[in-house]
Amino acid sequence: MTPINLAEKLSTFTAHWSPRIVGAFNGHDLMVVKVQGEFVWHDHPDTDDFFMVLCGELIIDLPDSTVTLTPGEVFVVPKGVRHRPRATVETHLLLIEPAGTPNTGDPATAATKVRI
Amino acid sequence: MTPINLAEKLSTFTAHWSPRIVGAFNGHDLMVVKVQGEFVWHDHPDTDDFFMVLCGELIIDLPDSTVTLTPGEVFVVPKGVRHRPRATVETHLLLIEPAGTPNTGDPATAATKVRI
Repeated sequence: MTPINLAEKLSTFTAHWSPRIVGAFNGHDLMVVKVQGEFVWHDHPDTDDFFMVLCGELIIDLPDSTVTLTPGEVFVVPKGVRHRPRATVETHLLLIEPAGTPNTGDPATAATKVRI
Repeated sequence: MTPINLAEKLSTFTAHWSPRIVGAFNGHDLMVVKVQGEFVWHDHPDTDDFFMVLCGELIIDLPDSTVTLTPGEVFVVPKGVRHRPRATVETHLLLIEPAGTPNTGDPATAATKVRI
């Protein structure tokens, strides 16, 4: 029963594209992640994908467009829509996904999500 | 397919304790709200309650403790746990609840959630 301080959680690691679980909400994992560079194109057939930028700038390539998110902005990639997150500067995100969702859309290539 | 700028959404209204729906995620409403003063004690028997402070300071009274949240902090009230949010200064929040959840826990007293 203590607040989750996202910046404090983010200060405990340096790896990119390696989400850390910081809480739980209605069967979903609340996660923070540091990103820089390009992730892989992927989709999640069974879940929407929630992104909130805490610092930096996140670019999400979509099949027919590109969105750019700055701090305080949220974007939800609808389930089944292919997307590629990328960032030119180190960017910190809050992510929300159903517990167990592979971050690449494929369990074989997904990062292990460590709880911190 | 555009980013949701939370500060921009919050700039469109002044009412307190009147959540506005700004997006959707896996059957949940994404909402912003401005709060100041005391809300009512209530619980949500079927859903956890997600709070993230964007600016200001949120105090959440719980049955046996009180938590204080500052900007960048998240707190999840587990389903069924009674709580009373309050704020001494105007505070802006991101809330996430299953679509249709009454903000007071009771449809009879709940605020209408307007989509903006």
